[in-house]
Amino acid sequence: MYKINENYLKLPGSYLFSTIGKKVAEFTAANPDKKIIRLGIGDVTLPLAPVVVDRLHTAVDEMGVKDTFKGYAPDLGYDFLREAIALHDFKARGVDISIDEIFISDGAKSDSGNIGDIFDVDNKIAVCDPVYPVYVDTNVMAGRTGEYNADLGKWSKVIYMPCTAENNFAPELPKETPDIIYLCFPNNPTGSTIKKAELQKWVDYALKSGAVIIYDAAYEAYITEDDVPHSIYECDGAKACAIEIRSFSKNAGFTGTRLGFTVVPKELKSGDIMLNSLWARRHGTKFNGAPYIIQAAGSAIYTEEGKKQTKDMVAYYMQNAKIIREGLTDAGYLVSGGVNAPYIWLKTPDKMTSWEFFDYLLNEVNIVGTPGSGFGPSGEGYFRLTAFGTYENTLEAMDRIKKL
Amino acid sequence: MYKINENYLKLPGSYLFSTIGKKVAEFTAANPDKKIIRLGIGDVTLPLAPVVVDRLHTAVDEMGVKDTFKGYAPDLGYDFLREAIALHDFKARGVDISIDEIFISDGAKSDSGNIGDIFDVDNKIAVCDPVYPVYVDTNVMAGRTGEYNADLGKWSKVIYMPCTAENNFAPELPKETPDIIYLCFPNNPTGSTIKKAELQKWVDYALKSGAVIIYDAAYEAYITEDDVPHSIYECDGAKACAIEIRSFSKNAGFTGTRLGFTVVPKELKSGDIMLNSLWARRHGTKFNGAPYIIQAAGSAIYTEEGKKQTKDMVAYYMQNAKIIREGLTDAGYLVSGGVNAPYIWLKTPDKMTSWEFFDYLLNEVNIVGTPGSGFGPSGEGYFRLTAFGTYENTLEAMDRIKKL
Repeated sequence: MYKINENYLKLPGSYLFSTIGKKVAEFTAANPDKKIIRLGIGDVTLPLAPVVVDRLHTAVDEMGVKDTFKGYAPDLGYDFLREAIALHDFKARGVDISIDEIFISDGAKSDSGNIGDIFDVDNKIAVCDPVYPVYVDTNVMAGRTGEYNADLGKWSKVIYMPCTAENNFAPELPKETPDIIYLCFPNNPTGSTIKKAELQKWVDYALKSGAVIIYDAAYEAYITEDDVPHSIYECDGAKACAIEIRSFSKNAGFTGTRLGFTVVPKELKSGDIMLNSLWARRHGTKFNGAPYIIQAAGSAIYTEEGKKQTKDMVAYYMQNAKIIREGLTDAGYLVSGGVNAPYIWLKTPDKMTSWEFFDYLLNEVNIVGTPGSGFGPSGEGYFRLTAFGTYENTLEAMDRIKKL
Repeated sequence: MYKINENYLKLPGSYLFSTIGKKVAEFTAANPDKKIIRLGIGDVTLPLAPVVVDRLHTAVDEMGVKDTFKGYAPDLGYDFLREAIALHDFKARGVDISIDEIFISDGAKSDSGNIGDIFDVDNKIAVCDPVYPVYVDTNVMAGRTGEYNADLGKWSKVIYMPCTAENNFAPELPKETPDIIYLCFPNNPTGSTIKKAELQKWVDYALKSGAVIIYDAAYEAYITEDDVPHSIYECDGAKACAIEIRSFSKNAGFTGTRLGFTVVPKELKSGDIMLNSLWARRHGTKFNGAPYIIQAAGSAIYTEEGKKQTKDMVAYYMQNAKIIREGLTDAGYLVSGGVNAPYIWLKTPDKMTSWEFFDYLLNEVNIVGTPGSGFGPSGEGYFRLTAFGTYENTLEAMDRIKKL
C-alpha cells in the first residue's frame, strides 16, 4: 500500500488571500456602490516592455520556421541569456560570476522551493519573521520543521528571526546556530533592506558557523540607495556560503511570463562536493529548461533600450511607493519600506490587530491591503500596502486615508 | 554545519548522451568527409504549427497592452486550457475528467520528477526495464531506491519489470508487490504499447494491491491502432489508482516551448486524503503557473485547424517510423515499435552489445542511434532509432543499412 508524504498534512491551510477575497466579496455585495481600491496585491500591473514584446514576436517567428526552430533548451539555460546576466547583473557591479554558475529557471518561487531538494532533511532553517510563506511551507513539505504550534504560529524546529520596528526590520544574528538561513532583501513583506556592511556580517557569520544562506534578491531592481547591495556576492566570501535567487517578475513584469535564475557559485562546497553540481543534477533531472521564446525575451531587458524601458516601469511603481509612504506619514502612521522596495509596511494605529485594521480600512475607506499577521507572528500589528496599483488609484487611496 | 542530500551522491553519472557525443565528435574529426545521419534524438524537428504561432503572436500582443496584460496565472492553469483538455483529450474518448483534476505544468519531465514529492520516502517503486531514466533518478534523489549495484545496473530497492522480445516488450505483473508503479505507453524507449484489456489488468492489480500507478502518456498522439488506450482512465477503476501525465512536446512540438499537464482524479485517495489536494498544494507552493502565452498557444491545438496541423506533424514522423521499421525488417533485423510510437527498437545482430552495434553503425554507415543498454540492463542487446529526423535523411539511412 502506497504511503503519502505525511508532512503535507501538517501544513495549516493558507487562508490569508482566500479570507481577504471572502471579506472583499461580502463587502462588495453589501455595498455595490462603493469603489474598492486594491493595494494588497504583489503582482505587477503594467504590460510587458516594448522590447520584450518585440523579442517575443521575433522568437515566435523563429519557432515557426524549420531552420530556426528550437527543440529542447540546454538544461541550465541558453548561453546568450546567461552571458547577459553575468555581464549586466554581476560584472557591472564588480562581481565575477561565470555562466556555469547561473541556472535559468521558470521563476524565483520554483527555485526557492526546489532548492531544498539538494539539502538533507536534517538541517535546521532560520527565517525572518514576517516572511514570504514559500520558504517555510516548502520546508514543512520536506519534513524539516517539526511540529506546528497554532497558538504561537510557529514550527518547533524553525529558528525565527523577528523583524519589527524595534530592530528596524533587520534580523539579528540568531542565538541558536542554523544550518540554512533564508534572507530576502529588499524584503517582502516589510520592504526593508540592510546596508552592505550589515549583510557582510551575515556572510561572515555563515562562513564561521558553516551555514548556507539562501539569498532572495527578487526585488533588487527597486533599490534606490547607494550602499544597499544588489547581490550578496558584493560581500567578501559570499561565494563560499551563499546561493542567490533572482527573478524577472518584478523588474520586468514577468509574473505571468515566468523567468528567473539561481546562482550557485562553484566555491560553495560541502567538503569536496560542489553544490553547483548537485543543483545542475537536480535541474537536469527534474526540469527541462525555460521556453526559448521566454529566454529570448528575458535577454531583451539587458539591451540599452530594454534597460531604459524596465527602469521606467520600476520608476512608475516607485512613484506610487513614495505617494503611499508620504501619504501615510502625513496621516500620522508609522511607516517603513517603500524606499528600496515596492512594499510599504505600516504599524496599525490604536493597537489594532492586523485583521482589525484590514476591516477598518475596507469598511471606512474601501481600501484592500494585506494583514501583516498573515506573514508570521511578528507581523501582527502591521499591514502591507503595495505600489503595484495605478498612479490614479494610489493617489485616491491616500486622499481617502488622510480624510479618515 | 549544513548537510547536503547524500542521495545525490549515489547517482551514477549520466554518461549515455555524453559518450555518444564524444564518439560522434571523434568519428567526425577522423572522417570529415562523411555525412552523419542522426536518428538517436528524442527531440522533435518540425517547427511549431501555424495555429500555434498565430496564437503565440496574439497572446504576446495581449501581454503588451495594459488592459489585456496577464500577471500571475492561476496556480493550476487557465480554465480555457483545462476545459479544452477535459473536452478533447478525455470527454471525446468517453472519459469524464473535471477541470479541477487537471494541473497545467511546464512539461511531463518536471511532473514525472516532482510527483514523487507527495509520496513518503518509504515507498517501493516498480519500473519497466528499459525505462526513461527520470523515473528512477528522481527516486534515487528522494532516497527511495537503496544502493546501486554497478555490475547489475540495478538499485537494491527498485522492482524491475523486464520488457524484452520474450514478453513482447510488455511488463508482467511483478512478483513482489510495489507501492508505486511507473508505466509509460506508448513506451519510450521500446515504442511498445499494450491493449486496453492488458492495461485493465494493471489497474485491477493496483486496486487490489493498494499501489498507485504513475501513467506517462506523453506519446499517446502516436497511437494508430484502435484497441490501444490513449488514457489509463479508459480502464474501469483507474481514477481510484492512477495519476496520468501528459505533454505537448511530442504531439505539438513543444519540447522547447514547454507545456504539459497531470491528471490527479479526486477519487484517488489514501484513506481520507485526496492526492488531488496534495498535488494542488505542491503545485501552489513550489510552482507559479505556466506562462500565459504558452497556455494560450497550447489551447490552439484543440481547434479544428490545430488538430489537423498537429495530426499532420505526427503523420510526418510516423511516415519516418514506417520507413525505418520496414527498412530494418527488410534488412533482416528483429524490430518492434514504430506502429504506435515514434521509436523503433531493434535487436542487435550477431549478439553484439548495444555499444558494439552503436560503433558498428557509426563506423560502417555513419548513422547515430541510441544504445539500448543506456535505458537499463534489459536494454542490453537492443538499440533505439527515432522517427524525428527528416524524411530524406530517414530514407537515406535505410538505404545505407540495407547495403550493409
